[in-house]
Amino acid sequence: MKTTRKLLLSLTGAILVMLVAGCASQQYTAESVADPLASWTDGGAKQRIITFVNAVTDSSSPDFVAVSKRIATFDNDGTLWAEKPTYFQLLFIIDRIKSMAADNPEWKTTQPFQGVLENDMAAVKAAGEHGLVEMLLATHAGMTTDEFAEIVNDWLATARHPSTGKAYNQMVYQPMLELLDYLRANDFKVFIVSGGGVEFMRPWTEAVYGIPPDQVVGSSVETKFEIRAGKAVLMRQPKIHFIDDKATKPVAINRFIGQRPVIAVGNSDGDFEMLQWSTTGSGKRLGIMIHHTDSVREWAYDRNSSEGRLVRGLDEASENNWLIVDMAEDWRVIYPN
Amino acid sequence: MKTTRKLLLSLTGAILVMLVAGCASQQYTAESVADPLASWTDGGAKQRIITFVNAVTDSSSPDFVAVSKRIATFDNDGTLWAEKPTYFQLLFIIDRIKSMAADNPEWKTTQPFQGVLENDMAAVKAAGEHGLVEMLLATHAGMTTDEFAEIVNDWLATARHPSTGKAYNQMVYQPMLELLDYLRANDFKVFIVSGGGVEFMRPWTEAVYGIPPDQVVGSSVETKFEIRAGKAVLMRQPKIHFIDDKATKPVAINRFIGQRPVIAVGNSDGDFEMLQWSTTGSGKRLGIMIHHTDSVREWAYDRNSSEGRLVRGLDEASENNWLIVDMAEDWRVIYPN
Repeated sequence: MKTTRKLLLSLTGAILVMLVAGCASQQYTAESVADPLASWTDGGAKQRIITFVNAVTDSSSPDFVAVSKRIATFDNDGTLWAEKPTYFQLLFIIDRIKSMAADNPEWKTTQPFQGVLENDMAAVKAAGEHGLVEMLLATHAGMTTDEFAEIVNDWLATARHPSTGKAYNQMVYQPMLELLDYLRANDFKVFIVSGGGVEFMRPWTEAVYGIPPDQVVGSSVETKFEIRAGKAVLMRQPKIHFIDDKATKPVAINRFIGQRPVIAVGNSDGDFEMLQWSTTGSGKRLGIMIHHTDSVREWAYDRNSSEGRLVRGLDEASENNWLIVDMAEDWRVIYPN
Repeated sequence: MKTTRKLLLSLTGAILVMLVAGCASQQYTAESVADPLASWTDGGAKQRIITFVNAVTDSSSPDFVAVSKRIATFDNDGTLWAEKPTYFQLLFIIDRIKSMAADNPEWKTTQPFQGVLENDMAAVKAAGEHGLVEMLLATHAGMTTDEFAEIVNDWLATARHPSTGKAYNQMVYQPMLELLDYLRANDFKVFIVSGGGVEFMRPWTEAVYGIPPDQVVGSSVETKFEIRAGKAVLMRQPKIHFIDDKATKPVAINRFIGQRPVIAVGNSDGDFEMLQWSTTGSGKRLGIMIHHTDSVREWAYDRNSSEGRLVRGLDEASENNWLIVDMAEDWRVIYPN
């Protein structure tokens, strides 16, 4: 009796596994060939994106946009990859402080460094924005640009996310990877415009997103040209050059890209002005806000979050005709396999 | 007798015309199909460029460079287009001051504006760099970025060069247009990195050079995001943001492009550090200085010129293994037909 039950259970289990595997395999073969946005559910969000792209790429459409003007800009934190429990660059800073502590004994008694070394996040948070900038400059300056890229690559190769155990650059959103590919297949030139450090992103964006270094715009520190042992280097200086956030995102888009995006995608009020800059241009435009609604597969947050705070972006989306993507409803999967 | 002579002359003329036409046709059909650098003479410069490009694009070569790393940067003034009698942007400033004078009556008695209005170039020069910045900000700020692009386009459509009578953007170098095309055909991504104003260049670089706005790096003023009548605009501010010259060219290349160029091309000591940044990188690199040696077809100048001053670039080219292009010797033609 016991054996029969066991057999029955394991048989049921096997059938379930086969069914699930069957579904998954169907999803990733038949659908992914036919459907460039296979990880999006067949809801309104996906349909609206496809309708928009068809309109601006059909040369007989009144909304046609020439290839040279097909610019799309994407925020990074919370839009292309996750940003919880906090911005991944901040986790990088914390790891850097720990690994640099031996060479900086004064950090043992100096906040916010002491807080980081003692895992006392209240003390770190108490140091506020000033403390954050101090930690940023202590860990992001004093080396050449080439050396910094190596530090970022080494960290990504070994660091793991505290709750998922994934490498950070595997916590990118599969539906967004498909959207990037879909836009490129329709001759869009795709850019990142992020508050994150530009040299924290560039070492890996080409491999992960297919976005080359010159199509990544972000915050930056000053650099200084020097000749060392006959070779030209750029030394990273402990001075912030530019913070790419809110009303400076349009400034950066104009400075680096020189055209208004036809599509702009963000997830927080830090992206509000980028969407305004894009969608109040002449002709058909699409503004998209990714809404973090999935507490099971990812995180659910908006108005009260210290990362990706989204208030105006929700309240004014409708009057601006922006698309709100509901992660729980609109996405079949979150991360790549 | 007279008729026979006339006939003979006209026949000889016709034969000459046919011969010349034949040569020309041969040059622009057979050669231009076979030879992507048809306007370059078969001297050492052309051969060195082709040998270099073959080496870095041949996947079996030890010097092979992956497509994603094939970055080439070009200075603009004196490298892609002419810069005499002075920088074309300065001629634009002068024209702008004259057309804005009615709205600025105080300019009649204020240097350097007075000097411009009275064609007293000695007074203008006496105002030095400070005066130049003042004229720049008076003419380049106070409007939206879109309005400024229109002003530049209107000027280019009507202004003519004082000695050639050509539109300024027809005074681009045909051999350089071919070099840009040749590099793109070999999967190079081509950028402008110029001391000129980025928003003075972007309105026309795509049509003239095939270089899109986001691949143009230059000097800039600050801009400020505003909402006007429900539309987002960027207002150009009377404050310089960045001067892209000398040791700040590598800084800008890193900031905007994020990779060291494999090929860097300039014509003055303002490009010296850009060539250093490029050619002291690892792997095979090519630095090129265009040397203005042709007083008949263009201008001849180097060490003592206020535009395109070239001293170190000549003196240290050999030890740096940079290619000096001799315009008189290496170029069959200067401007496009």
